[in-house]
Amino acid sequence: MPGAEPPTGPLERIARDEAAARQRLDPAVHGYFAGGAGREQTLDEVEPQWRALWLRPRVLRDVREVSTAVTLLGETLTAPVVLAPVAACGLVHPEGECAAARAAQAAGTVFCMPTRATRDLAEVAAAAPTGARWFQLYVAADRELTARVLARAAAAGYSRIVLTVDLPVGAWRPREAGTPLALAPGIAIADHLGEPAHPADAPARVKPLAGGWDAGLTWSDVAWVAETAGLPVIVKGILTGEDARLAVEHGAEAVVVSNHGARQLDGAVPAAVALEEVVGVVGGRIAVLVDGGIRCGADIARALALGADAVMIGRPWLWALAAGGEEEITALLEALRDDLSRTLALLGCRSPAELGREHVRRSTPPLG
Amino acid sequence: MPGAEPPTGPLERIARDEAAARQRLDPAVHGYFAGGAGREQTLDEVEPQWRALWLRPRVLRDVREVSTAVTLLGETLTAPVVLAPVAACGLVHPEGECAAARAAQAAGTVFCMPTRATRDLAEVAAAAPTGARWFQLYVAADRELTARVLARAAAAGYSRIVLTVDLPVGAWRPREAGTPLALAPGIAIADHLGEPAHPADAPARVKPLAGGWDAGLTWSDVAWVAETAGLPVIVKGILTGEDARLAVEHGAEAVVVSNHGARQLDGAVPAAVALEEVVGVVGGRIAVLVDGGIRCGADIARALALGADAVMIGRPWLWALAAGGEEEITALLEALRDDLSRTLALLGCRSPAELGREHVRRSTPPLG
Amino acid sequence: MPGAEPPTGPLERIARDEAAARQRLDPAVHGYFAGGAGREQTLDEVEPQWRALWLRPRVLRDVREVSTAVTLLGETLTAPVVLAPVAACGLVHPEGECAAARAAQAAGTVFCMPTRATRDLAEVAAAAPTGARWFQLYVAADRELTARVLARAAAAGYSRIVLTVDLPVGAWRPREAGTPLALAPGIAIADHLGEPAHPADAPARVKPLAGGWDAGLTWSDVAWVAETAGLPVIVKGILTGEDARLAVEHGAEAVVVSNHGARQLDGAVPAAVALEEVVGVVGGRIAVLVDGGIRCGADIARALALGADAVMIGRPWLWALAAGGEEEITALLEALRDDLSRTLALLGCRSPAELGREHVRRSTPPLG
Amino acid sequence: MPGAEPPTGPLERIARDEAAARQRLDPAVHGYFAGGAGREQTLDEVEPQWRALWLRPRVLRDVREVSTAVTLLGETLTAPVVLAPVAACGLVHPEGECAAARAAQAAGTVFCMPTRATRDLAEVAAAAPTGARWFQLYVAADRELTARVLARAAAAGYSRIVLTVDLPVGAWRPREAGTPLALAPGIAIADHLGEPAHPADAPARVKPLAGGWDAGLTWSDVAWVAETAGLPVIVKGILTGEDARLAVEHGAEAVVVSNHGARQLDGAVPAAVALEEVVGVVGGRIAVLVDGGIRCGADIARALALGADAVMIGRPWLWALAAGGEEEITALLEALRDDLSRTLALLGCRSPAELGREHVRRSTPPLG
Repeated sequence: MPGAEPPTGPLERIARDEAAARQRLDPAVHGYFAGGAGREQTLDEVEPQWRALWLRPRVLRDVREVSTAVTLLGETLTAPVVLAPVAACGLVHPEGECAAARAAQAAGTVFCMPTRATRDLAEVAAAAPTGARWFQLYVAADRELTARVLARAAAAGYSRIVLTVDLPVGAWRPREAGTPLALAPGIAIADHLGEPAHPADAPARVKPLAGGWDAGLTWSDVAWVAETAGLPVIVKGILTGEDARLAVEHGAEAVVVSNHGARQLDGAVPAAVALEEVVGVVGGRIAVLVDGGIRCGADIARALALGADAVMIGRPWLWALAAGGEEEITALLEALRDDLSRTLALLGCRSPAELGREHVRRSTPPLG
Repeated sequence: MPGAEPPTGPLERIARDEAAARQRLDPAVHGYFAGGAGREQTLDEVEPQWRALWLRPRVLRDVREVSTAVTLLGETLTAPVVLAPVAACGLVHPEGECAAARAAQAAGTVFCMPTRATRDLAEVAAAAPTGARWFQLYVAADRELTARVLARAAAAGYSRIVLTVDLPVGAWRPREAGTPLALAPGIAIADHLGEPAHPADAPARVKPLAGGWDAGLTWSDVAWVAETAGLPVIVKGILTGEDARLAVEHGAEAVVVSNHGARQLDGAVPAAVALEEVVGVVGGRIAVLVDGGIRCGADIARALALGADAVMIGRPWLWALAAGGEEEITALLEALRDDLSRTLALLGCRSPAELGREHVRRSTPPLG
Repeated sequence: MPGAEPPTGPLERIARDEAAARQRLDPAVHGYFAGGAGREQTLDEVEPQWRALWLRPRVLRDVREVSTAVTLLGETLTAPVVLAPVAACGLVHPEGECAAARAAQAAGTVFCMPTRATRDLAEVAAAAPTGARWFQLYVAADRELTARVLARAAAAGYSRIVLTVDLPVGAWRPREAGTPLALAPGIAIADHLGEPAHPADAPARVKPLAGGWDAGLTWSDVAWVAETAGLPVIVKGILTGEDARLAVEHGAEAVVVSNHGARQLDGAVPAAVALEEVVGVVGGRIAVLVDGGIRCGADIARALALGADAVMIGRPWLWALAAGGEEEITALLEALRDDLSRTLALLGCRSPAELGREHVRRSTPPLG
Repeated sequence: MPGAEPPTGPLERIARDEAAARQRLDPAVHGYFAGGAGREQTLDEVEPQWRALWLRPRVLRDVREVSTAVTLLGETLTAPVVLAPVAACGLVHPEGECAAARAAQAAGTVFCMPTRATRDLAEVAAAAPTGARWFQLYVAADRELTARVLARAAAAGYSRIVLTVDLPVGAWRPREAGTPLALAPGIAIADHLGEPAHPADAPARVKPLAGGWDAGLTWSDVAWVAETAGLPVIVKGILTGEDARLAVEHGAEAVVVSNHGARQLDGAVPAAVALEEVVGVVGGRIAVLVDGGIRCGADIARALALGADAVMIGRPWLWALAAGGEEEITALLEALRDDLSRTLALLGCRSPAELGREHVRRSTPPLG
C-alpha cells in the first residue's frame, strides 16, 4: 500500500538497495561501482575496522531531546552525513547527479558534485538550487581546462572545492579490467566546460578528460586551486598524520580521511585507524571528515567519537539511486539520521558535540 | 521412561531448549526473543568474550565438600545465578512469569519480575510466595503511574527494585521490524496497576505503557525510586567505570553490568570486558552482578573470578520455559548449579568466595 | 607388497589412524576417547597454540650427526616422547596396555600404565619386561586399596608414580553422556589388586573403583604416595606457576603440564601457554613434561624450546593401537623420532639439549 | 585476436597461470611444486603476513615520472624483482631454465640458475648471454664435485653464488611422499659437471647428486665457496638476526631472507616478520633480499619499505613457465613492474629508494 512501508534501518536498507542494484544493473556497471583495487583487501577491511571500536554508553542522562544537527564549515546540516563524490552515477540512474543533489537538498545535507559527472555542474546546481553543494576536483594536466571548470563551479554556487589527492594515477581494479562500460543512450561524461558533452552513442570505458589528470600535483597547488576558484579547499584522500599536518600548513579548510572507496591503494591503512592519527595531528585546527565503510548510526558515532566532524557515504547512496532514485536516497539519509539519533540517546548524548574519545574503546590491542 | 532422562549439561540443555522453542513458537515471537539490535555484533560477541578468559586451575586442594551457595544482598541463594528480567515471557508459555517465579523458588534463587509482564505482579508473588523476588522497573513518563506500581510491588513482597537504565529509547532491532507479535488468547501485557490488563483479543506488537518510558531519567531518580518504593535499588545496564562510580555515589545497592541481552546499543563493550572495569572502580563498595552470554558453570566461574557477586541468565530460562515450562527452568538451574560445582572443584575451590582474579587469564593481549 | 609402504610423516599417520579408528570402533567408544569436556574449547585450542610458536632456525651448523636421544629421570630414551597414560585402552584393541607397553619398549621409551586399565599391572610388566614403565595413579578414597596397588606396582618394576591431580571430580563430557560403553567379551576394568577383574559380561560405563577417587587429596599426599610406593612421584596435571612451585616444595621429582587431554576443566589455559609459566617458576630444579596437542616433530621441538624435558602423547598412540596394534604404535614413535630429527637439523641443532627459548617466537602479542 | 589481450594485474595472472599449470601438469609434478613441508603452516601464513603490513600513502607529491629501476649488487635491474632459484623447472616446460633465463634477460632482471637443474649451466648461459645470472649452490658432500661446478659457473659468466643454507637435510613434504616424479623424455637432472646428464629414460624421483649434500656446512664454508668460485656469495635462507650478523661477519655480499618456499622448516617465522629483524641487524652493511609469498606490487613495496633491496619470486614464475613458457614469464615480470610502478605513485614515491619504514604500519600488535 502507498506509504505503508514500515521503517527500515540503514543496514537493511543498504543491503536491499545493493541487491536491487546488482539485479538491475549491467554486470560491468555493477562491478565498476562495487569493486575495489588490487586484491580488495581494503574493501574487505574497511567496514570491520569500525566495528573494532566498541561503544561505551553512558546512562541516566536526560536524552528526551536529541538532535543530530551539526554546523559544518559554516553550513547547518540535519546530520553529519555528506554525500561523497561518486563518479558517473548516471550509469545507474538516468537523472544521475541531479537526483542525488535534490535528495541531499531534501535531507538537509551537502552534495559533492564530481568532476567525473554525467551531468553538467550548472544543470545540477539548478536542479537543487537551495542545497549545499561542493565541487569535487580532479586537476587536469591542462591547467587552463581546470581553471575554466573552477570558474564555472564558483559561478554556479558550489561553496567548496573538494580536491581529491589520492589519484595521481589510477589503481589496478580487477573488476574493471577488460569490460568496457556501456553508457546508456543519453548518458555522457560531462566535462563541465560548458560545451557539449562527449558523444553518448559510443560505448566506452569511463575515462579521464583528454590529456589526463595531473600526476604532478603538489601541496602548493592547494593554494592555486583556492585562488583560482576563489573558494576554500577541502583536501580529500589523506591517510597519514604527516599529510594532515601539511594540509593544515597549506591552508586547507578541511581534510577528508579516505581510502577512495577502497578503489586506489589496496592494503592502505583503513579509515578508522587513519582517522585517529589524523585527528591527533590536526588538533582541531581544521575540520576532519572521513569516509569508507560507514553504514549505520553506530559507525557515524564511532567516527565522531574519534574526532571526525562529519562522515561521507559513497556506495550506500549510489545503490539507493540505482534502486529507487532520488526518493530512496532521501529515505536512506533519513534512516541514517534516525539511527544516529537513537545511537546518541543510547550513548547518553543529546548531540554529536557531546561525543568524545571516551565513548569508544578499541577491541584490539594497540597496533605496532 | 519417566524420569529416566540422563543428566544433561547446561550447554546441551540450552541448545535443546532453544531448538524446541524455535520449532514451537511463532517465528515472530521467536525472532523477538532471539534477536538483537543493529547488526547483532554484540549478540555475536558476548559469548566468545567469556571464553577469551582462560581458567587457571589449582590442584591438590581438598574439594570433597563444594558448595555453590552464596549470600547476595542478604538473601541466601543455592547458587549465584539469578533469573534476569525478561519482558512478556507469557508469549512463550501460558503460565509466563508465574512458572518462572515458581521455578526460581524451587531452585532457591531470585526471580526478577519485569515491568513488561504478562501477569500482574501480585499474582506472581502469590504463585511463589516464599521465593526471593525483585521487581524490574521501567519508569513511565507519567511518574504517578510508576509510583503506584512501586507501591504495589513493595506491598507484594518484592525486596529490591532493579532499575533498568539502558533503555532511554528503544534500539533498532531488525528481527522485530514489521512483524507484529500476536498475543495468544488470554495473554495480555500487564501494567501492574491493579486494573484489568490490556485486552488480549487484539493482536498487537508488544509496546510500552501509554505515555511511554521516561527518556529523561537521571541519576537523581535512583533516590526517587528508592524512596518511592521504600526499597533498595539495583541499577541494571552499566557498562563503564564512570557510571559504576556514579551508581555508588547515588546510593545504588548494586549494579548489573549488562548489554540488555544485546538488544540495546549494538557494538557496545561486551559484558566480560566491562565487568572488569566496573569491578575495578566499585572496589567492593556495592555488589556487582553481570549478565550477557553466561551459559555454563565455567562462564559463571569466570564472572565470579573477575569480581562479580552473581550472574543473571536471560534467554536460557526463556527457552527452558518455552520448551518445558516451570519444570525445565528448575532443571536448567540445577544443571547450572551442578556444572558450577564441578567447575569449582576442578579449579580447586570449595565455594564461590574462593574464586579470585588469579583464576582467569585473558587469552588476548591487553586492549587499547 | 609386504613392507613396501613408503615412509609416512606423523601428521598423516595420526590422521590415517584416527580415521581407521573412527571407522572400526563402536561410536560410543570412539566418542569416549575423541571427546573433551564442556564445549570442547580446550580440545579446539590446544593444537593451534603450539603452532602459535614460530620456529627460528639457525643455519650453517654442522648437523651431520643428529641424535634425538635424551636422559630423562635417569632413563635413556631414544626420543623425548613418552606414552601418556590413557584409561581403558583395551576398549580399542584386545591386547590393550600389553600392546602399548611392548611398543614403547621396542621404540625405546616409557609406557605409563594407568590405574584405569584393562590389564593387570603385573601382566603388562611381564609383557614388556625390559621397557621403562611408570605407573599412573588415581588415589582411591579407600587409601588401603591404593597402598596395595602401589606395593604391587613397585614390585612389578614400575619406576615412578605419575600422580594425576586434575581429576578431583570428573568433568562433564557431553560425548560420554547417556551412551554406555560396552566392554567387549574378555575386556574388563582392572583394579590392580591382584584379584579377578570386574566381570566383563555386563556392558557398563567405564567407572571408578568402588568407593571412588579421593577428592580430598592435598599436597601432603605427594609424600604419602612416594613413601607408600617407595618410588619418586611425578605430579601430572599442573597448569599454573603457583602449583609448579608447590610441586617442587613437596618433593615431586617432575611435573607434567597437562590439560588431561582436554577432558577435565574446559577452557583452561592451553598447555603451550602454561608450559612457559611453569618452566619459569621451576627454574630447572625438577623435570618438566608436557602433554596436549603434540602431533609432530615441530611441536616436540617447540615444547623443548620452551623448556620441557619431554612430551607425552595420548590420543595419537590410542588411535595407532586401534588401527594397527603394537606395530603401529612403534611405527608412530619412529615417525615422531624421525620428524624430530629432521626438525632439529633444520633448526641447526644436533640434539634436544641444544634447543632453547631463542628457537621460538610467539606469533601473538604478549598475553594479558 | 593476436596480441589483443587486455593488460592483466599480477594477481590475476598468477592465479590464471597456476590454474593452467594445475590442469596441464601431471598431478605428482604439480604437487611437487605446489606443496610445502609438514602441515603447510608456513605455506598458509606467508602471503597473509605481507598483507598484515598496512601501507601509508603520502599524497601531493610529483609522481609524473616513476621508475622502478634499481641497482642491485652492481647490476641495474628494471625492477627489484629477481627470479628465485627453482629446482628442476624442466618438469613443467621442455625449455626449462633456458626459457626462464631468456625471460629474465628480456625483462631486465636476474635469473638464478639452480644446482638442481634440468639444463646444464653453460647451455643456459648461452641461451641468455647478456642477462644477469647468478648460480644457486647446494654443496655436495664430495667437495671436489662442487669445486668443479663452481669453476664452470664462473667460466660461464655467473656473477654471484647464491649459497642455499636452509637445506642441511630435506624436510618432510607430504605431497611428495610416495609419488615418484616422472621425468618426461629428454628431461634429465643436470649435474653441471660438463658430462652427460642422468639418463632420462628411467622415471625417478628428483634426487640429489650421488653422495648427497653436505649437512656439515658451516659459516667458514662461505669463504671456501667465495674463494673456490672467485665470486661474491649471497647467503640464502636466513630467518634470524643472529644468522644475519654471522653472514655479515663471514663476508657474505648479501643475504636472502627466505622460508625456502615453505618447503623446509614448517612453522618457521614468516619472511615478512623475519625481514624486519634481519634488516635491523644488518643495518645497511650488506644487501638484503627476501622471498616468500610476494605476489604483487604492494607486496614488493612492503618488502622494500621494511628495508629489503629486492625480492625474489618463485612459484609465480614457475606457473608462468608451465602456462606459457618464456613469453609468459616476461609478461608476468612486466605486470609486476607495472603494478609496482602504480603502487609507488600511489604511495607518493618516484622510485624504490624513496620507500621507507614510515610507509608501512603493522595491523597487528607488536609480537612477543
